[in-house]
Amino acid sequence: MVETISLQKIKEIIQKNSAEQLIKIIEEGFVLYAQKKVVVPPVGYLAFEKPPGDVHIKYGYIKDDDYYVIKIASGFYDNPSLGLNSSNGMMLLFSQKTGEVKSILLDEGYLTDIRTAVAGAVVAKYLAPSNVSCIGIVGTGMQAKLQLQYLKSVTKCREVIVWGRSKEKLELFKKDISLKDFVIRITTDMTQLTSRCNLIVTTTPSKKALINVDDILPGTHITAMGADADGKQEIDSQLITKADIVVADSIDQCIDHGDIGFAIREKLIDPSQIISLGDVIANKNLRRNNDEQITIADLTGVAIQDIQITKYVYSKAQE
Amino acid sequence: MVETISLQKIKEIIQKNSAEQLIKIIEEGFVLYAQKKVVVPPVGYLAFEKPPGDVHIKYGYIKDDDYYVIKIASGFYDNPSLGLNSSNGMMLLFSQKTGEVKSILLDEGYLTDIRTAVAGAVVAKYLAPSNVSCIGIVGTGMQAKLQLQYLKSVTKCREVIVWGRSKEKLELFKKDISLKDFVIRITTDMTQLTSRCNLIVTTTPSKKALINVDDILPGTHITAMGADADGKQEIDSQLITKADIVVADSIDQCIDHGDIGFAIREKLIDPSQIISLGDVIANKNLRRNNDEQITIADLTGVAIQDIQITKYVYSKAQE
Repeated sequence: MVETISLQKIKEIIQKNSAEQLIKIIEEGFVLYAQKKVVVPPVGYLAFEKPPGDVHIKYGYIKDDDYYVIKIASGFYDNPSLGLNSSNGMMLLFSQKTGEVKSILLDEGYLTDIRTAVAGAVVAKYLAPSNVSCIGIVGTGMQAKLQLQYLKSVTKCREVIVWGRSKEKLELFKKDISLKDFVIRITTDMTQLTSRCNLIVTTTPSKKALINVDDILPGTHITAMGADADGKQEIDSQLITKADIVVADSIDQCIDHGDIGFAIREKLIDPSQIISLGDVIANKNLRRNNDEQITIADLTGVAIQDIQITKYVYSKAQE
Repeated sequence: MVETISLQKIKEIIQKNSAEQLIKIIEEGFVLYAQKKVVVPPVGYLAFEKPPGDVHIKYGYIKDDDYYVIKIASGFYDNPSLGLNSSNGMMLLFSQKTGEVKSILLDEGYLTDIRTAVAGAVVAKYLAPSNVSCIGIVGTGMQAKLQLQYLKSVTKCREVIVWGRSKEKLELFKKDISLKDFVIRITTDMTQLTSRCNLIVTTTPSKKALINVDDILPGTHITAMGADADGKQEIDSQLITKADIVVADSIDQCIDHGDIGFAIREKLIDPSQIISLGDVIANKNLRRNNDEQITIADLTGVAIQDIQITKYVYSKAQE
């Protein structure tokens, strides 16, 4: 019988092992992806109206590897009223040599959250200014907290300003036990955040830009990870034109439905100006030269992240 | 923990229950599909070279139903040299209301074979001439045998002529215990088959037409189910133009990569002449008027079949 790995077991594996290991495998994945050694077909998609929900099927494989991976990730937005998480899904690992299923990871969306947070840490590792004065987190959701947890591995800074619309959620964020290593201040005024933070991560489902071009400090790096579907936007298009370096996890996806897409459609930047995250990791000449440059990374989530984290959890489960 | 259903259990359920039940649910599915009550996005696809293999991801749902289904089906063509079946895969059943996984059917490709055979029976039920003199089976593989098994429910005819290229495989086919209710003759000469059979099913992966336009008897019905991918062809395009009724399980798919596609591209018939199988089931005016008409059905396999058989096995497993 095929082995299924429960969410509890998956959480144990992720928590028992170091963040550095995850950062390493996700980095390696992005490099392979930028080098076109990964096959990632278009994402499969289902949408539901009553109740509202959607399903993404991301799948692919590293060429000449042993496995292929299919991820099913759903969001059903009325679930919390039933006492259920919005997110659900699983990761499936198959042999690239025979088609046999090797493992079914019943992660219920957890590994998508983790690999997304890890990608944020990878970006900060290569693009943040050398001296991070304060980390700015835009949004108060679960991904906002996970971003901070994984940033611990790549910056010494423990000063945080969190922006949110809801004072109640901000207060809960500040008290979150998983973030006890940080000194957290909260605000509903974005300029409070932009005037002090030079490493900013946006994690909201916003449909209009939240950060103004004129407000940010020289040397700031911004990671935008909320805009993962058509119509979502967190970053002012003008800000993208002001950036010295614009990076995308997947250039194609970011043009199609990321923050970068808005700037492209407004003809403010040319697609040729966008650098693939994997190339930034592999080539230090593509990173910032000094601590005055503004850098932006747009993350939409790529199947290579799912492939890498699935293989990782499977290998650890065998130990 | 999510329930997985093993191949053994799935086989027990299929074998314990009647073919008529399966025919009924597959019929209902095709009707819903023709009525556009089923959401079936484009098929996901992965291809491998060393060793050669491919993976199809078929998925979708009936509108306002309780479930959605994702099927993963692979073919790795060197597997037999390792003592493994070429086919593998699974069917996944999820809630359309919350995204929760309800069941994982580890069918290893078995249910795809069954639902394909059942579709053949559905076609014969509605399109075969009233008096089937002899059943012609083109091909000697597993699907050829399954077609006969399910045809038992829709025709009284037990006379069969099987065509194949390999005498050895023909002899094995003739001796197959699962077909003991049939009187089976074998041949490597297609005209032996076409001159006697008025219900013909083609089940080969051929890339060139196997049946000539001038050889078939008046009143013959042909079901072509081998051509399930681009470049495959079993039926002479001229034969499609000669047919009084041309039916497709999915008009879009058959134009794209079925036998019908060749005739369309050669401009021998117009897409408007093709009738959806679901409409033939729902409307008796779309079936043959007499036993002189020639009818052809092109089957490429549609996700609604996977949805229906997955729901069926799941419901039986709950009993």
